[in-house]
Amino acid sequence: MTILVAVRGWKPDHWIDALRATAPDRTVVLPGDAFDPTAVRYALVWKPEPGYLRTFPKLEAIFSLGAGVDHLTTDPDLPDLPVVRIVDPDLTGRMTEWVVLNVLLHHRRQAHYITAQATGTWKPLRQWAASAVRVGIMGLGELGSDAAQALQALGFRVTGWSRTEKRMDGVDCFHGDQGLAPFLARTDILVSLLPLTAETENLIDRAVIDALAKGGPLGGPVILNAGRGRSLVEADLLDALADGRVKGASLDVFATEPLPPDSPLWRAPNVFLTPHVAAESDPEALSRYVIGEIAAYEAGRPLRHLVDRHKGY
Amino acid sequence: MTILVAVRGWKPDHWIDALRATAPDRTVVLPGDAFDPTAVRYALVWKPEPGYLRTFPKLEAIFSLGAGVDHLTTDPDLPDLPVVRIVDPDLTGRMTEWVVLNVLLHHRRQAHYITAQATGTWKPLRQWAASAVRVGIMGLGELGSDAAQALQALGFRVTGWSRTEKRMDGVDCFHGDQGLAPFLARTDILVSLLPLTAETENLIDRAVIDALAKGGPLGGPVILNAGRGRSLVEADLLDALADGRVKGASLDVFATEPLPPDSPLWRAPNVFLTPHVAAESDPEALSRYVIGEIAAYEAGRPLRHLVDRHKGY
Repeated sequence: MTILVAVRGWKPDHWIDALRATAPDRTVVLPGDAFDPTAVRYALVWKPEPGYLRTFPKLEAIFSLGAGVDHLTTDPDLPDLPVVRIVDPDLTGRMTEWVVLNVLLHHRRQAHYITAQATGTWKPLRQWAASAVRVGIMGLGELGSDAAQALQALGFRVTGWSRTEKRMDGVDCFHGDQGLAPFLARTDILVSLLPLTAETENLIDRAVIDALAKGGPLGGPVILNAGRGRSLVEADLLDALADGRVKGASLDVFATEPLPPDSPLWRAPNVFLTPHVAAESDPEALSRYVIGEIAAYEAGRPLRHLVDRHKGY
Repeated sequence: MTILVAVRGWKPDHWIDALRATAPDRTVVLPGDAFDPTAVRYALVWKPEPGYLRTFPKLEAIFSLGAGVDHLTTDPDLPDLPVVRIVDPDLTGRMTEWVVLNVLLHHRRQAHYITAQATGTWKPLRQWAASAVRVGIMGLGELGSDAAQALQALGFRVTGWSRTEKRMDGVDCFHGDQGLAPFLARTDILVSLLPLTAETENLIDRAVIDALAKGGPLGGPVILNAGRGRSLVEADLLDALADGRVKGASLDVFATEPLPPDSPLWRAPNVFLTPHVAAESDPEALSRYVIGEIAAYEAGRPLRHLVDRHKGY
């Protein structure tokens, strides 16, 4: 019952320690270790080398270490096995924190207060009520619905858009191509939590930006992206920020990561940037989750949160 | 049924307009207007001239335009009439926004990310879970309980401290002098929403600061104050920030307001300042509330949210 951990872009030491501590009876191996490939039953992966997972003939399931799965679904040689998306309350809660923090940063005009503080200036601005602000969430999976609930509890008017039809209490839900324009027209703060698929790549472009609500309490729309960088056309956002069609933004994900030092996004007005940390996987919490899912599977229960490889999420 | 609006420190124009729009059948007057003092039944006030309210023999009730009432209870000539504290969902929601925003600013290490952004630096920091952070709220009235609920919903561990005993679901509540030390010992982020009374003046001093939890996920305690400036000894906070006993702070209220340009608070490390805007009274929402309370009172129902002048809140 060997578990393989294959990640690129970061060191898996924390993960290995956490998995071994959680499941001392299992063998946990890394790509460089000496081990029998036929012993590997489960793979926990992040951006594995394309084709690499094909080399384990007895592999039964692939776990994606993070909310997104585009790092897997784009591998043409991915074996035809269940791919499990990590849906952990810890990860979801972290994303909701990021969304709530960044909605409030714009709603409460924090950029103004940070600048005023730096110059020793006491300058109160009028503050509108949350009930006057319409937040539109793109992507109504586990992350989007949790963020929607938290924003509703704070008094914001929340709408949602998803590819397929969804229902949520108190949230006006739109879906599909025909639902996009009416959704955008009633959105003051757009929050994208979209996965990266062929359909979402470059989805938030100039046309989408210009279809957002005009005016409103913030004077114009604000855009938040913590889904995937490539679902937003950064040049179109920069243009809209420069000429005031968009009043502010918060970005945690970028077309190229790390964001290149010469990107004009670093210095764009009223923009808050974080380096892809909105919902970091916590090794301890997620190890418990993954080991629990494997144990349930081995006890004969079906794997949950499987990726639909046709839809890409 | 004349209503008097007597405020100092800001222009009541918005209020007058909102009251007249809400209750066109009532007479609304200002101190400078020509009117019969014996016609005044209700006074809506903020920091009225001491002794001024004594000049209206048929006054029946005093409404304080804001969450705090220390601007009234310190007037030795205040007539012995019911003083109504404004408890409006709009005001409460605004305060909760400020508390949630500022807890998240510290929890999510936003000061680091703001600095990193300014220098074009991609530098992720490890992020702890909300469940590892203990938020302690001082003052468990309407504002404190609402903030506690919102923070709990985001996954924080919330405790509370109040002068008299309170109970809240899922919140460990401490009270009185003997409850203060155990409350502080388990608090990573202290949130003061205390009213200003003889007992709370200068309450948060060096001794209280040094009784807060050491270490913890943030490396040391963080202090938020949106109650009243004079409940915190600013010099003691500055000392603690300078030598690292306190790791950060968010302040909306100050001993002297506006905060003097030469105050070292403007430039203190990891401190977020706002100019007493956490829970601004919104004229439209609060006019509807006050007129509704007056109508209920005239229909024979008791006034709600009366101030206990002995306790001072």
